[in-house]
This record gives sequence, structure tokens and C-alpha cells, in this order.
Amino acid sequence: MRIVSLAGGIGGARFLRGLRSAAPDAEITVIGNTGDDITLFGLRVCPDLDTVMYTLGGGINEEQGWGRTGESHVVKDELAAYGMEPQWFGLGDKDIATHIVRTQMLNAGYPLSAITEALCARWQPGVRLIPMTDDRAETHVVINDEQGRRAVHFQEWWVRLRASVPAEQIVLVGADDAKPAPGVIEALDEADVVILPPSNPVVSIGTILQIPGIREAVEKKTVVGVSPIIGGAPVRGMADACLTAIGVETSAQAVLELYGSRLLDGWLVAEEDEGVALEGVRVVARPLLMTDPQATADIARAALELAR
Amino acid sequence: MRIVSLAGGIGGARFLRGLRSAAPDAEITVIGNTGDDITLFGLRVCPDLDTVMYTLGGGINEEQGWGRTGESHVVKDELAAYGMEPQWFGLGDKDIATHIVRTQMLNAGYPLSAITEALCARWQPGVRLIPMTDDRAETHVVINDEQGRRAVHFQEWWVRLRASVPAEQIVLVGADDAKPAPGVIEALDEADVVILPPSNPVVSIGTILQIPGIREAVEKKTVVGVSPIIGGAPVRGMADACLTAIGVETSAQAVLELYGSRLLDGWLVAEEDEGVALEGVRVVARPLLMTDPQATADIARAALELAR
Repeated sequence: MRIVSLAGGIGGARFLRGLRSAAPDAEITVIGNTGDDITLFGLRVCPDLDTVMYTLGGGINEEQGWGRTGESHVVKDELAAYGMEPQWFGLGDKDIATHIVRTQMLNAGYPLSAITEALCARWQPGVRLIPMTDDRAETHVVINDEQGRRAVHFQEWWVRLRASVPAEQIVLVGADDAKPAPGVIEALDEADVVILPPSNPVVSIGTILQIPGIREAVEKKTVVGVSPIIGGAPVRGMADACLTAIGVETSAQAVLELYGSRLLDGWLVAEEDEGVALEGVRVVARPLLMTDPQATADIARAALELAR
Repeated sequence: MRIVSLAGGIGGARFLRGLRSAAPDAEITVIGNTGDDITLFGLRVCPDLDTVMYTLGGGINEEQGWGRTGESHVVKDELAAYGMEPQWFGLGDKDIATHIVRTQMLNAGYPLSAITEALCARWQPGVRLIPMTDDRAETHVVINDEQGRRAVHFQEWWVRLRASVPAEQIVLVGADDAKPAPGVIEALDEADVVILPPSNPVVSIGTILQIPGIREAVEKKTVVGVSPIIGGAPVRGMADACLTAIGVETSAQAVLELYGSRLLDGWLVAEEDEGVALEGVRVVARPLLMTDPQATADIARAALELAR
């Protein structure tokens, strides 16, 4: 069986670990969100790709959900001692090595997709991880605070401001000119099923779907989504702030309608959200909390069953 | 009093600490060797400038003579885990932060001299540290081993091969087109005395003197050199391997003749080298081992007295 999954960071990565365990013989291709990517201190950082790679490769800080286990912050502290900004992004030493390798390869002319493959050669995530695009398409957020109305990089809103300032608009800068990375459309065309993990529907899944050609290729397939909203609140993260920014309610029903029946064939919701419905989409209710690997595998298994 | 000193790495840096303590009221300008600079993993590394900066700024690993005190090597180990080469250069985590700042500023278009000034704003070395040039002039070494006759970067010969393969030739690639960094010639023109510390006469002092215009500016001044050779052996480092490469004996006499009487006015040798002489140069013998800060200051004081 060939499965394609679109994925953001923490939630997506954890779900993928469950999916890999629920379908050990499947060929899984993961299309990763790169809208959150940022250049810090001259180093190219791809938070979502790395979270997927570290989580599936056994290097993730489990408690935190992102970054490396046993991480130190010597370089970050030294950069701060030099007065370097920004200081709000938690770059760990082990993580920095990944960014150094990536940046060096980018400067040598390699596309991000080839670099991601090279990095995965070490991590052996057990899935094929492809960035959504090799082109630069960055999520920016329009905010209006005491400094006035302005667009900031997604990470500044998400990490520095912790999404505490309302987003007036969320824009994927560069989306129109971006092409899907090599292998993305091919993987979708050959897929038996496409799974949307409980990733952020706006700035993760929504971002990937904005790359020209990807939404159309996904719509042709049997697609099952796992609701990232349980009982009116995001399972984790701040998806509510993103949904509010695009005028969508924080509910399993509203996200189902946002994705719509052209995209989705099945929608997995939590038991407390039973009753959610949309014509043309089969909705099934199951326990959706990814409390441990076993529970997560059960969710993935339910999604695959729903696809059949 | 205005003092200019040309300096390499460990020996030069230690001597400068003594000079600063021997002449606390002097304005000291240090012209640093950048022929050893190398780009590793996309990061620009300036070993000699950093050794001077860390030593005078109180951040040096005293036992080792280079690198930072309390250093860790997380990034280096991770780069090795990715299979990245070279693995023979000991990049520490604290040190890497310096290289990240430098590289980011270089990529933003700042010249190395401005960057060095910015880095020194943190370290407060108590001297003005200027790279010999903002241009790229790199020391390469022609060797002939089982891989055949070829030129390697100085660091590969020095650090990886530990100068165990004889150097057939030592070339400063790019020297002809390099210009002294802003402030170098001005500092020399305004200097009351120029001091050559016991740095490597070939790949440190000799390299600096190869940048067009510097030798001429130095020759105009009262110049006192401190012999890096005591009793036929380098005080530390592998200066003998470099001297041999250019056909010069490893002795205080031979280095005196290498510098010559056009350059030097005074030559400070160790007591065991008493008798060394060259017409036009005043030679004085003193204890030259930089065993501690006090002994080092005494050597610097003797050099300044010789200049008077």
C-alpha cells in the first residue's frame, strides 16, 4: 500500500510514528510543510521537516515535542553574549549542526529536497520525507500591535509573540511562484490513500495545499483527515489563533467544512465531537488523544480503515 | 607611546598580554595574521585573530593556548554523525558562535576588519586588533606524499598532518592582489615602535609582511623582534618545519638573518643564544621563556627598552 501524508510539526510527526507502526509494510511518503522555515544567523532552519525527521528517527526531545533529546545551548548563549538577535528562537547545539549541514548544501546549490534526503540518510525515519517545495514560500502574519500594523515572519508571531497578538491575515509569501518539490506530485498520483494528520489546518496542511498543483493532486485521491480539534479546542499548539485569523471557528465541524468534501472522503473526530457531519464525507468518531505510541497507532489504524 | 605589533596565534597572543601589561598606557595596535583563515562547514574561521582576541579578552583555554575555556564539542560531534568532513579541525561550540557571527557579517557585506572590531567590542582586548588584510590571502603548502605532489591549505598541513610531511613550498595565495586592511598602514606610519613577537617567522610574521605595502611601512620604523627560536628549537609550535621549507636553519641567528637589518633594529634572543649577531642590528640576550604573565611582561619590557 502506498500512503501519502501531509504533515506539519509536532502533532503531524507523532501521528506519523503511529501510522508507520499501524502500516509497517506500507510505503509512506510525507510531504512536509516548509512555510515555517526561517533563516537565523545565516543558517536555514526547517522546523517541521526536522521535527518529523527527529521524531521518526528517534532523536526527538519527547517531552518538548521538538528539538533534540539531551540538547545543550552553548552556541545560542554565546550568540547572545555577542548581542546577536533574535534571542527568542531556541536553537540547540545538536540542532545547529543540522542547520549547518543544510545551509552548506544550499549554498553549494543543492535543492532542499535533495538535502532533506541526505539528512534522512542518517536518521532513517522509515518514510520518504519530501519538502512541499524547493522554492521559498514563507508564511507571514499581519499583526497590529503597539508597533503598528505590519507583517512578521510566522516564527516571530508563533514563537516570540506566542500568537498572543491576533493575526489579521496569514499569507504564504511566494506561494504563486512555488512549484511542488520533485516527487511530490508523483507520490500523490501513485498513492492509494492520502492521510491528513491532526496538524494545523491553516499554517501546516493549509500551507502545503497552497503550493500550486498539490491540492488538485490530493483531491483526486481517497483522503482521510484526522481532526486537530477535540471538543472545541486544539489538541496542542495554537491552531485556534490561526483559525480565528481566517474566520473559521475552532471546532471539528468548522475544520471539516474548511477542508470540504472536494478534498475529504473521510473525517475522523473525537468521541466528544460525534454528530459532526458534511455531505459527501464519511465521519467516524474515535478516541483521538495521542497519549502514547499505542493510542496513536490506533488512531492511524482507524484512519486507514475509514479510507477502505 | 604608540606600539604596533604583528602577531600570529598562541605565541604572539601570549606575548601581547605581556606587552599590554608592560606598557599599560601605550596605544597598542595589533596587525593579525589571516593567512591561516579557512572556511569550514560554510563558516569563516580566523584562528589567529581569535586566539589574540580570546587571549587578551580573558576567554582563552590557557592550557591549550587556543580555543575557548570550558569548551564543548556538541556541534562537531553532530557534524561527524552526519559524515561531514573535515573532522580533523577542533571546532568548539563557543568558538562556532564567533564564526557564525563573522560569517553572517561577511555575507552581509562587512569587511573582516569591521567584523573584527565588532567582535572585539565584546572581548575588550585592550588593544586595537586589525587583520592584515580584508582580502582573501591564504597560505597553501606544497607537499609530496603517497597521494602525490599537491598544494593543501595550511591548516590541512598544520592540523591534520601536524607538519609531519615536509613542505616543499609555502605560498600565500592571493598575496599580490591583497591590500592592507584600513588602518594598518596608518597605524604603522604613526607608530613609535614596531614589535615582532616570537610568532612563526614564516607563516605568521612572514605572511603579514607579504601583503603589499606592509613591509615597506614596517622598515621605516624602529623595529625590535623577539626570537621564536631558543637554543635551536622553536619555543612551541612547529616553526622549524616552516623554516626548513624555505631553506632557513632553525636558529636565532638564521631567523635574524631572514628578517635582516633592513627590517630589524633590535633582536632579543635567549641567554643560550648569546653571540648571535648581524651588522646594523642590536642584539640583546634575556630569558625568553614565557612561563607566566610576569616573565612574559619582562620580555616585552626588554623589547621596549631595546627599542629606546
